[in-house]
Amino acid sequence: MTTTIEPMPTERPRERRQRVQAAETGMAVLKGLADLGGRATLTALSAHVGEPSSKVHRYLVSLGEEGLVSQDAATQQYFLGPEAIRIGMAAMRQADPIRAAEPALVRLREALEVTCFVAVMGNKGPTIVRFEEPGLPVTVNVRVGSVLSLLWSATGRAFLGYLDERAVHAMAKEELASALPEQRGLLDAKRPIDSLREAVRAAGCACVRDVYLRGISAVAAPIRDHTGRVCAVLTALGATGGFDALETGPIAAAVRREAAAISATLGCTEPARG
Amino acid sequence: MTTTIEPMPTERPRERRQRVQAAETGMAVLKGLADLGGRATLTALSAHVGEPSSKVHRYLVSLGEEGLVSQDAATQQYFLGPEAIRIGMAAMRQADPIRAAEPALVRLREALEVTCFVAVMGNKGPTIVRFEEPGLPVTVNVRVGSVLSLLWSATGRAFLGYLDERAVHAMAKEELASALPEQRGLLDAKRPIDSLREAVRAAGCACVRDVYLRGISAVAAPIRDHTGRVCAVLTALGATGGFDALETGPIAAAVRREAAAISATLGCTEPARG
Repeated sequence: MTTTIEPMPTERPRERRQRVQAAETGMAVLKGLADLGGRATLTALSAHVGEPSSKVHRYLVSLGEEGLVSQDAATQQYFLGPEAIRIGMAAMRQADPIRAAEPALVRLREALEVTCFVAVMGNKGPTIVRFEEPGLPVTVNVRVGSVLSLLWSATGRAFLGYLDERAVHAMAKEELASALPEQRGLLDAKRPIDSLREAVRAAGCACVRDVYLRGISAVAAPIRDHTGRVCAVLTALGATGGFDALETGPIAAAVRREAAAISATLGCTEPARG
Repeated sequence: MTTTIEPMPTERPRERRQRVQAAETGMAVLKGLADLGGRATLTALSAHVGEPSSKVHRYLVSLGEEGLVSQDAATQQYFLGPEAIRIGMAAMRQADPIRAAEPALVRLREALEVTCFVAVMGNKGPTIVRFEEPGLPVTVNVRVGSVLSLLWSATGRAFLGYLDERAVHAMAKEELASALPEQRGLLDAKRPIDSLREAVRAAGCACVRDVYLRGISAVAAPIRDHTGRVCAVLTALGATGGFDALETGPIAAAVRREAAAISATLGCTEPARG
């Protein structure tokens, strides 16, 4: 679980305030340079952060001494340097979708009283890696370690919709080839996989009702990393009678919103739909 | 060309020093967290940056307020947050091997009085995109826009040695199929491409003497980006009589060193050999 950082009770308020301001201004200058595409003139950067250029320049000197910013002698532009790349890469490497999803699982369970989980794409298919149940859980025969169907589970469909990879396509075709006639009949006759993918992308989530597990409905949305790639899927499920699995319903909206928030903490800047 | 950032003459020295210190300490804490893999306890981070934990904590509060650092409530660890990823991605996007190579081209030209250039892998093969000549240039029939051989030029061999991609292999096989017998005779009889690749990787550079252009020798080394991938090649060339093209010679050492320095400014942390 992630929280904001609380001040230590021992520190002197005045000292803290001073140090904080200068460090925060430094970070604001760094973020401003990122806002402007990682490269800008002093004039443009000062206008963007809303500080006088003499002040911004002093911070750029500090950022330069720490290797976070360099200056191009030909154009006089400032740009984010190798230390900024190194910090970003360390941030990306430690960003973990499962850990990042934990607060969302707790919020979904408590706000909607639903069973919810996070799945990743394993070598056998979508695999549940974290599972949260409400106080009065619905009985389902899936748990941590369960591998789900790509074509018939909401979780699998959320992966299928966004993971445009050869191995995933091959897995989907294999499932289709071995599907029972009544399962096959639920999909588009001519373009079963492509139309499924398009529907998921248009909705930004996958919703199933009594398809994969009898009496169970589920809603799943993609969690994406800093490259925009789907690295996990967030799913909520419940007994069909008391669970609104409509794309336009409140559960789908909450699952999409939480998945987008997790994606943002992983550095994703792309919208999930389309 | 990249330089360090000079202070503005108008600023008051005392004020500058204060602001600089706090901003630099903030950056040092951020870099320290990256050193420790992007995630650490306050104790470990304080020990690493060599500051008392109460002080480091104040800076972490600032970094947290700007979204660069978050805290894991379960483990109490601090970790690099989404803004650190965003800044790193902006830094990577604007990192340009051609621009980054300019100071190296000037240094090589001035220190060694050699012709030198930067090439990227174009759709037709290695393509010269920046070219520097000394005051008394050697006459060569390559210039900006020239596409070079993958198998017979030093530049091409440097790409071939490090770019393990299908399109590059296909291009190399095509060149081999259309090679003249005397060109083919210069390569290993059984494993012409693989042995070339191994030799380049062992030396960290590619050296040719009168192979691609009559009377011309050249030395080329890979420029790598933050993922370790070769994004460009740095090459020095000269008339064979006055140009030491030995792998162990001073020109090869300078080209390797400059290519590694450019790679470092692009965020590469991997060594070039092996």
